[in-house]
Amino acid sequence: MTGIAVAVDAMGGDFGPRVTVPASLAVLRENTSLRLTLVGDESLISPLLAGISPGLSARVQVLHTTEVVTMDDKVAVALRQKKQSSMRLAINLVHAKTVDACVSAGNTGALMAVSRFVLKTHADIDRPAILATLPTMIGHVHMLDLGANVDSEPRHLLQFAQMGSIIAEVLDGIERPRVGLLNIGEEEIKGNEQIKQTDELLRASGLNYIGYVEGDGVFKGHADVVVCDGFVGNIALKTTEGVAKMMAGMIKAEVNRNWLTKVAGLLAFPIWKGLKHNMDPGRYNGASLVGLTGIVVKSHGSADIASFAQAVRVAVKEVEKNVPALIHARLGQNEVPAA
Amino acid sequence: MTGIAVAVDAMGGDFGPRVTVPASLAVLRENTSLRLTLVGDESLISPLLAGISPGLSARVQVLHTTEVVTMDDKVAVALRQKKQSSMRLAINLVHAKTVDACVSAGNTGALMAVSRFVLKTHADIDRPAILATLPTMIGHVHMLDLGANVDSEPRHLLQFAQMGSIIAEVLDGIERPRVGLLNIGEEEIKGNEQIKQTDELLRASGLNYIGYVEGDGVFKGHADVVVCDGFVGNIALKTTEGVAKMMAGMIKAEVNRNWLTKVAGLLAFPIWKGLKHNMDPGRYNGASLVGLTGIVVKSHGSADIASFAQAVRVAVKEVEKNVPALIHARLGQNEVPAA
Repeated sequence: MTGIAVAVDAMGGDFGPRVTVPASLAVLRENTSLRLTLVGDESLISPLLAGISPGLSARVQVLHTTEVVTMDDKVAVALRQKKQSSMRLAINLVHAKTVDACVSAGNTGALMAVSRFVLKTHADIDRPAILATLPTMIGHVHMLDLGANVDSEPRHLLQFAQMGSIIAEVLDGIERPRVGLLNIGEEEIKGNEQIKQTDELLRASGLNYIGYVEGDGVFKGHADVVVCDGFVGNIALKTTEGVAKMMAGMIKAEVNRNWLTKVAGLLAFPIWKGLKHNMDPGRYNGASLVGLTGIVVKSHGSADIASFAQAVRVAVKEVEKNVPALIHARLGQNEVPAA
Repeated sequence: MTGIAVAVDAMGGDFGPRVTVPASLAVLRENTSLRLTLVGDESLISPLLAGISPGLSARVQVLHTTEVVTMDDKVAVALRQKKQSSMRLAINLVHAKTVDACVSAGNTGALMAVSRFVLKTHADIDRPAILATLPTMIGHVHMLDLGANVDSEPRHLLQFAQMGSIIAEVLDGIERPRVGLLNIGEEEIKGNEQIKQTDELLRASGLNYIGYVEGDGVFKGHADVVVCDGFVGNIALKTTEGVAKMMAGMIKAEVNRNWLTKVAGLLAFPIWKGLKHNMDPGRYNGASLVGLTGIVVKSHGSADIASFAQAVRVAVKEVEKNVPALIHARLGQNEVPAA
């Protein structure tokens, strides 16, 4: 059968099938070469498929299982005890090449561990990384690692840079993506040891390495790819979410201050609409677990239907561009220095 | 002579005396027990003092010097070659107890190095830290270290926590400030080694330690004090600035989209005014170099008059509350475990 096949962990995330199923159907409608396997509890999924057209129905199937990895499950539990979970079965389908990619809004730690166990990393990659696309003032940036690894060594960061560069190249069509290394700007204390050694490796890497990028430079669009350790990257990502939510809350509070501001808020409706569109986390939902032999996309756990659909689209795009095979082919050519 | 005496490095920052002098005079006007020493080029400072009232004039003096630490000066240059710089002389005045505190908008790395060299740290503190106050959804938070140290060891982070707790207690009047440790939330990979060891020290510290706080939790107001390594803290701080600027830019772009949104933007004026007030970095200007035997406050280099005045007020408040002596007295009582 031709076309693209994607498995969806229908049970993952805060809302389970009532978000994942309608979102999956929405992407199925817009892409006629797509087939989906919804993995999870049939008694919850099937009612949500009632009444869909025969054309759609022919391209969606359900793989039934009742076991679920919860948000609170320890990684060890997900890995060793829940071998029939919707998450695990979706990843198994990627491994068996029954599908080309899978998408889950489940527990990030479990998804990373199970994906790594089932799919393994490429021969030239020591550790997979989490890559997300974030908005900038002038477009967007691919940032990795956002939390898969802490205490990364310089050669791991080099590998992240190599993978990020390939992804920016194939997804955005940029010939030589600008790769930056996240760092702080104070002269005396520029970077820690990890950063200084990584900087040397990147200078010798053949990538279009532009040097250090600071926290504010990320959002100014100074680079197409920003590389960092997962600890720092996750702090930066969560900080971004926190500040954006705080500002949105402040705008709401200002609008509700008195009748004058309430009227002003109503009249400013077109501005809010545009801002909401620009800052909508759903537009950027779908982080990629890169470095594995297959495509796994992580949706935000609290994603709504529109956001989860976006994560499915990310998976489809990576299948179309053949991302894992490209990473495998390119990194196989490179000499990866042991730092 | 009674009252509070503060030295101002009048030459520091992007704008020098034309910001630092009017800002200093503004604070002098609102606080009649304050005396100021403006350190810098008399030929640039004196014209800005022309025409002030005799009452004000009696409380301000100029310490003349033409040497200046520039934003691009290497720390070694500032420390060894510029011994007559306005920054150095201001810090010397603190050391000589001629003044109670000093304020500078100059080069952060140089300010930290010179302050540390001249003033030294408290006996029980290994390294000074940079503490800033940031807005949250429900108030504000004191965060440290924001860039003085990279590769901090757990016992350094413990000391930062102890200092931060004292500052939140005396500046905010909170009896037992909630102290959080900045960390990431993924189960499998919760924290790096530095964080895990610091967590153990903090649990045994006698502080009101509430455990881990994530990047978004900082802005939700989960803690009164958030502790982190300077590398991570500086990335988080710059990320915060970057996101806030990006959102402000997006609002402007939405307002300028067409005539309808332009009109809406004009009508929403009271909302912008309130938002600007809430997000104004000037309201939070003035980071403290804590752990030294004297008070040194760092203003943002690009501070305007209102912002720089705020940094001077931070210095005054720390003098009033006797912060360094309190830190010295309290930490002298504590057993600081060698981790």
